[in-house]
Amino acid sequence: MDLNADMGEGFGPWSMGDDLALLDVVTSANVACGFHAGDPSIMRRVTAEAVERGVAIGAHVGYDDKAGFGRRHVDIEPSALRDEVLYQLGALDAFARIAGDRVRYVKPHGALYNTIGHHVEQASAVVAAVAEYDPKLPVLGLPGSVWLQLAREAGLTAVHEAFADRAYTPEGTLVSRREAGSVLRDAEEIAARCMAMATGQPIQDQAGGSLVVEASSICVHGDTPGAVQIARHVRGALEGAGVTLRPFSH
Amino acid sequence: MDLNADMGEGFGPWSMGDDLALLDVVTSANVACGFHAGDPSIMRRVTAEAVERGVAIGAHVGYDDKAGFGRRHVDIEPSALRDEVLYQLGALDAFARIAGDRVRYVKPHGALYNTIGHHVEQASAVVAAVAEYDPKLPVLGLPGSVWLQLAREAGLTAVHEAFADRAYTPEGTLVSRREAGSVLRDAEEIAARCMAMATGQPIQDQAGGSLVVEASSICVHGDTPGAVQIARHVRGALEGAGVTLRPFSH
Amino acid sequence: MDLNADMGEGFGPWSMGDDLALLDVVTSANVACGFHAGDPSIMRRVTAEAVERGVAIGAHVGYDDKAGFGRRHVDIEPSALRDEVLYQLGALDAFARIAGDRVRYVKPHGALYNTIGHHVEQASAVVAAVAEYDPKLPVLGLPGSVWLQLAREAGLTAVHEAFADRAYTPEGTLVSRREAGSVLRDAEEIAARCMAMATGQPIQDQAGGSLVVEASSICVHGDTPGAVQIARHVRGALEGAGVTLRPFSH
Amino acid sequence: MDLNADMGEGFGPWSMGDDLALLDVVTSANVACGFHAGDPSIMRRVTAEAVERGVAIGAHVGYDDKAGFGRRHVDIEPSALRDEVLYQLGALDAFARIAGDRVRYVKPHGALYNTIGHHVEQASAVVAAVAEYDPKLPVLGLPGSVWLQLAREAGLTAVHEAFADRAYTPEGTLVSRREAGSVLRDAEEIAARCMAMATGQPIQDQAGGSLVVEASSICVHGDTPGAVQIARHVRGALEGAGVTLRPFSH
Repeated sequence: MDLNADMGEGFGPWSMGDDLALLDVVTSANVACGFHAGDPSIMRRVTAEAVERGVAIGAHVGYDDKAGFGRRHVDIEPSALRDEVLYQLGALDAFARIAGDRVRYVKPHGALYNTIGHHVEQASAVVAAVAEYDPKLPVLGLPGSVWLQLAREAGLTAVHEAFADRAYTPEGTLVSRREAGSVLRDAEEIAARCMAMATGQPIQDQAGGSLVVEASSICVHGDTPGAVQIARHVRGALEGAGVTLRPFSH
Repeated sequence: MDLNADMGEGFGPWSMGDDLALLDVVTSANVACGFHAGDPSIMRRVTAEAVERGVAIGAHVGYDDKAGFGRRHVDIEPSALRDEVLYQLGALDAFARIAGDRVRYVKPHGALYNTIGHHVEQASAVVAAVAEYDPKLPVLGLPGSVWLQLAREAGLTAVHEAFADRAYTPEGTLVSRREAGSVLRDAEEIAARCMAMATGQPIQDQAGGSLVVEASSICVHGDTPGAVQIARHVRGALEGAGVTLRPFSH
Repeated sequence: MDLNADMGEGFGPWSMGDDLALLDVVTSANVACGFHAGDPSIMRRVTAEAVERGVAIGAHVGYDDKAGFGRRHVDIEPSALRDEVLYQLGALDAFARIAGDRVRYVKPHGALYNTIGHHVEQASAVVAAVAEYDPKLPVLGLPGSVWLQLAREAGLTAVHEAFADRAYTPEGTLVSRREAGSVLRDAEEIAARCMAMATGQPIQDQAGGSLVVEASSICVHGDTPGAVQIARHVRGALEGAGVTLRPFSH
Repeated sequence: MDLNADMGEGFGPWSMGDDLALLDVVTSANVACGFHAGDPSIMRRVTAEAVERGVAIGAHVGYDDKAGFGRRHVDIEPSALRDEVLYQLGALDAFARIAGDRVRYVKPHGALYNTIGHHVEQASAVVAAVAEYDPKLPVLGLPGSVWLQLAREAGLTAVHEAFADRAYTPEGTLVSRREAGSVLRDAEEIAARCMAMATGQPIQDQAGGSLVVEASSICVHGDTPGAVQIARHVRGALEGAGVTLRPFSH
């Protein structure tokens, strides 16, 4: 099983999250590429630290919108989006390569991640960018999303991820953050659920039913001190149960 | 001999210069990387057109300052500058590679070009970025500049360029743009001077003396319709005299 | 009757349109406020020239998106949008005031203009910003748009504008730019239509029927040399017919 | 005596300092205007909270450089700088006015503050902007700085500030941050020194001599939790000694 988390989301004088602590927990780092967050020196630092720990570097590409942290949908033309993704991929790869590795996968960020779950034109644009840049680069996303489907059709490797702390509907989609109970906060509960997901056991969906979530990576959050603790707890539980943690992309 | 010119200096809805016309004249294109000018879609277009014509792609890296078009010195920390250069190099290389080529050289832009002519810390930062990214990448600059000297000491290939339309001091440096007569405007005079520079003949310096300018590339300007005409005239004169034009980086 | 046009849409080294020529034609200038286009020095220049000619200054507020020229819908939170509009209003007013006048009206730009034609939350946000800044400031928009209706309900003066060169549906809305024939290009036809609109006569709608467009201002375009010619033609025709041109806001 | 501190220095998703805690301590708030830090919603929040507490709002204008937090000198043309200052002043004033007050003074930030201590052209540009915007607006700076001198010559009210936690040379200038001992860290020592400065008593300069620092405002820092504690300590000491704290601009 793989654990992934967002990283390098500071900007200039501003920091966010505890990247170093999180890099000791996860096996894949979704590194911001300077569009929704991140800057060249942060990207250099995070990629270097990731390589040192054997953590795989993923391009966490996003809309070009720091003020909105990439969390606002932007109705950008697909060709412009495709080129923005290529730009971010190339920029991050420079840092990955001087650190001795390279970008290993692509996971879009925030509103872009959500949009391409259903928006065919933007999803195609992201897929086209990855296919042009390197068709061997896997992409990470939600099972059932439009963009993973299009990625597969384009010959890319589409990898499923699960969310450690999000409630699931009986259909296997995420419960909207606007609904009560959509985000789990208890470390024990989160760890137990990750154990289930990592070993093929069902979890309880929002309606109380059984749901098997198949995923090659589990996304943990890291932008609060509490989140790092939870992530450590998840890792400890998985390792305690004999689950081997390693990058899905290796 | 090589002819180089700045390209891709539009941004979003705004255009600058006639890139397509200029790409038919020059052999090396200094492509803006999105910091002082340029955006992902412009970079994609210019690099694709350059590759189609066999024009070499150079990274025209600059300060992160579109409002000032990279023409204002910024007192940026050397490590931040180094990382900004790496970021730009990687981003441009993505487009060069999907077009079937790759970045072939580095030529800084505007105030950065001027600053690293004498500013040791910033010059070292640019050199370090190129050396980290690809020590085989040649750098293009003024003879006598600090940054070419540091590049050479770092094992990089430092290539000299001359300016088609700038007056020279007896010492071989450029006459400041603030002085009268610093910029030549007559197409015949400019072409004659380029002929001299391309064939090892001396040109007349500002004081009326003879000056031999040794260079592997001549920089022509392209941001006005008149400038494209002059560039065509230079190319015609050189070809008429049997000078072979090809990228210095090949 | 009033003629309005977008102005000050350059940025840094990049220019767009011929502001000075257009300022001699229109009576109201929609001045970009530095978010979708414009910068402080451009804003200063345009407002000073406008005041000198007795042209009224309007705040052409837009999404914070220069790369997309404010033409992409952004799903921004209403409170953030409200504050961005206030920021732009205050910034432009500084230049209007040092030029001896002040901002006289508000007309949103591009995608924001289109969005608040129907998007209640974003429309309310723009209305709230204007009401907070100065409830006496009129707002300019399309008859039937949600935002003018909300503006009226909030006690603002909502002013109708017509478009000189756009085809109209029988319902009085604009034909989408994606449809053939949506934009008129013939100067005579445009001028004749503006004459009709200025004198209460019907124009021909897309279906060939008669449509009376009631408006206190006509929007002309100015971002091409041809457009300035058309605008001059419109002005000449209106003046020739005895229509007095003056700012709607005076 | 007045206590001033920098505020509103977050941006988008990123925060910096504890503005609310600091607003309970100081009497003047230097509010970032969106160029080196701050955004419209942050500006709205900080100005509203300041007005509620009777804290005076100052425009903390800076270079347009968020990545460098306005701490890098930029060799910007004076006319462009003047217009950038006007833009920031107008934008902040919009929020101050809807909160029921207005901008009460101007204090430049970071590298701009340092540059105009000696750089005549940039200092003149800032002075010109303030004089154009409102010649009654006082400006806050270091005694002996070029910009306060030029401000006075232009008819502006130039107000002296002292620094609570910085070592002084015998000449009354600040010891460079690069030197050891340039920044005081002990709350007692800082409070004692502020008491001296507030009551006309000499402080000890770097060389051990006596130095009388005349100032109408003392600048405290707030970008760390420890700094807020120190600021509270300074305020407590001054109030305990019967010093009345109120905005210098009232």
